[in-house]
Amino acid sequence: MNKTRLEAFSDGVLAIIITIMVLEIKVPHGHEFADLKPLIPKFLSYILSFIYVGIYWNNHHYLLHELTKVNAKILWANMHLLFWLSLIPVATGWMGEHNFAKASMTLYGAVLFFSAIAYFILQNLIISSQGENSVLADAIGKDLKGKASTILNILGIAFSFYNEWISGAAYLAVAFLWLVPDKRIEKVFASKN
Amino acid sequence: MNKTRLEAFSDGVLAIIITIMVLEIKVPHGHEFADLKPLIPKFLSYILSFIYVGIYWNNHHYLLHELTKVNAKILWANMHLLFWLSLIPVATGWMGEHNFAKASMTLYGAVLFFSAIAYFILQNLIISSQGENSVLADAIGKDLKGKASTILNILGIAFSFYNEWISGAAYLAVAFLWLVPDKRIEKVFASKN
Amino acid sequence: MNKTRLEAFSDGVLAIIITIMVLEIKVPHGHEFADLKPLIPKFLSYILSFIYVGIYWNNHHYLLHELTKVNAKILWANMHLLFWLSLIPVATGWMGEHNFAKASMTLYGAVLFFSAIAYFILQNLIISSQGENSVLADAIGKDLKGKASTILNILGIAFSFYNEWISGAAYLAVAFLWLVPDKRIEKVFASKN
Amino acid sequence: MNKTRLEAFSDGVLAIIITIMVLEIKVPHGHEFADLKPLIPKFLSYILSFIYVGIYWNNHHYLLHELTKVNAKILWANMHLLFWLSLIPVATGWMGEHNFAKASMTLYGAVLFFSAIAYFILQNLIISSQGENSVLADAIGKDLKGKASTILNILGIAFSFYNEWISGAAYLAVAFLWLVPDKRIEKVFASKN
Repeated sequence: MNKTRLEAFSDGVLAIIITIMVLEIKVPHGHEFADLKPLIPKFLSYILSFIYVGIYWNNHHYLLHELTKVNAKILWANMHLLFWLSLIPVATGWMGEHNFAKASMTLYGAVLFFSAIAYFILQNLIISSQGENSVLADAIGKDLKGKASTILNILGIAFSFYNEWISGAAYLAVAFLWLVPDKRIEKVFASKN
Repeated sequence: MNKTRLEAFSDGVLAIIITIMVLEIKVPHGHEFADLKPLIPKFLSYILSFIYVGIYWNNHHYLLHELTKVNAKILWANMHLLFWLSLIPVATGWMGEHNFAKASMTLYGAVLFFSAIAYFILQNLIISSQGENSVLADAIGKDLKGKASTILNILGIAFSFYNEWISGAAYLAVAFLWLVPDKRIEKVFASKN
Repeated sequence: MNKTRLEAFSDGVLAIIITIMVLEIKVPHGHEFADLKPLIPKFLSYILSFIYVGIYWNNHHYLLHELTKVNAKILWANMHLLFWLSLIPVATGWMGEHNFAKASMTLYGAVLFFSAIAYFILQNLIISSQGENSVLADAIGKDLKGKASTILNILGIAFSFYNEWISGAAYLAVAFLWLVPDKRIEKVFASKN
Repeated sequence: MNKTRLEAFSDGVLAIIITIMVLEIKVPHGHEFADLKPLIPKFLSYILSFIYVGIYWNNHHYLLHELTKVNAKILWANMHLLFWLSLIPVATGWMGEHNFAKASMTLYGAVLFFSAIAYFILQNLIISSQGENSVLADAIGKDLKGKASTILNILGIAFSFYNEWISGAAYLAVAFLWLVPDKRIEKVFASKN
């Protein structure tokens, strides 16, 4: 089984996830600039989730790059990842509609957390199918970034019960951590290819 | 006519089907955890349907893998399959909104049943176009899994008139039957390729 | 410029068009079988439109098969076709929600008519870019099927002012005309490839 | 990293953007022709945005054509472009629902403006990654069309505070500027390939 359709299907699902989130930003009923004001939290939560899905797409790209043989486990681990990512639009919508209310921040963090777990499972399955000396295993190394993200994510969830803004700052920090270009990974891939 | 666009179109439709189902999980009006409670049946029905569409995508992948020549019959049999699968989101939404009410379980089972029939037709057309000794014919063999699924599916529909939970258990059993990796099929494909 | 992305983009748009139509079949509020009854006209109109989009996808497939050089005119003629096809879901929804009311049958026919015109323009541009002796020109020949469809389509529009059922029969006849496998076209392509 | 998935993902997102806009044209409640009248501004705004997204897809196609090496900067510049384009459906819906009200024309112009900026950034990153003598740098030249568009776009935003129709005329002019086939660019590409 080749990976072309796995990539195509994942790209399709990720493209739809990233785009249907915008449907949560409903057209305002009035026609004045002031009518756009209630859309601001929705817009901000859309930006955050757009970046998150973008990061997952980007990392997914790297993850499958070295993959040569797709087996049933990898296929279902990929489905599992897409499942959690597909819940991002609902969590984003709830967060945006209620101005980052505490419970919505917990849910958002939980969806991000389970997405990260699903990604971690997929990553490990791919590495173990490729062998320990694979380019991917090299590139990921001790996966400090992944571990730091998970800790920040858990902190975000914990803080969401006390203060939604600290929680939001934690989620934002994770996004920035991944947005900053990762020289090391690019270098490893470049040198091996 | 080559199969690239047939795969691309099917992947597109399946990716959209699996993702628009999440639109049925409407953002709750309140902002407390308690407001998420009515979403639980919707969420559970989403999980079940996500797995079903995932299984169809997975099997579709195998089905077209060996295909070399697409003819008009195969093309329309594929459209027919996509048609029934496209009804899964509506059936899922009805089931989730009314807490697995009996009639919704019947409808859900019927959509699954017609999808299975459509898949069976497509499978037979592909095998007959490839010849009896094709890898696919070998891999499918007596199609015990397909037959068991159909029987469970029919039982699920029959029970939906009496008890929605037995019905649901039947649909769940079909999903598990296919989720368990099928060593035999993978082996046949691996040995022949 | 190559045609790969033109095909991919068209496949994407067609896959979305065919799938979002199902969103018009809203989940019923009640949970009895009787609550499904108002969905019947929506369901029937969905079937008809599904077949139409399927036919367009199928024919589009043939049309681009022989294409080697994409120019700006062909690209925009393709966009023009996608534009009209993208209106099918709205027209279908209106038709289904008002039980095939006369005005909705006129609109539906008009959308089909403009789609056919757009297809005809695209077909002519591709033939003229390929040369008169192209396989496509051969396969289409005098385009009797295209002409018959257009006449039936116009009759359907005209009748929609008097009787919606005759109008519907005309649209149905066009669909059947294209669903029946076209031995001639397949033969011409097969013999030349 | 190759560009295949970048193209596939962008095509997916653009296909969804261009198609979900049609969801803003809600099925009318009545079943007479007169009930279609309120849809006219929505329809007109849909046409304009369809052309805009079509132009972006077309230009994006050219932009990535010569690209050989995708780096993280290009990838995120592409995401940034998709982000602004994904806001076109909301802006279009607001404009269409309120009959091109002044504020909606400002917002629409702003979304187009930021899309143009994002496109400009992506274009520069690609040119600088390809070297000054790339075919793309040649084809774009002094980018007079891009500059004229930006000026017209800014004029459209400025006028939207006084008269929505002059503003609309400016946005329409930009669309026509790009719709007219660009002989020069096609020639440069044709001669170099």
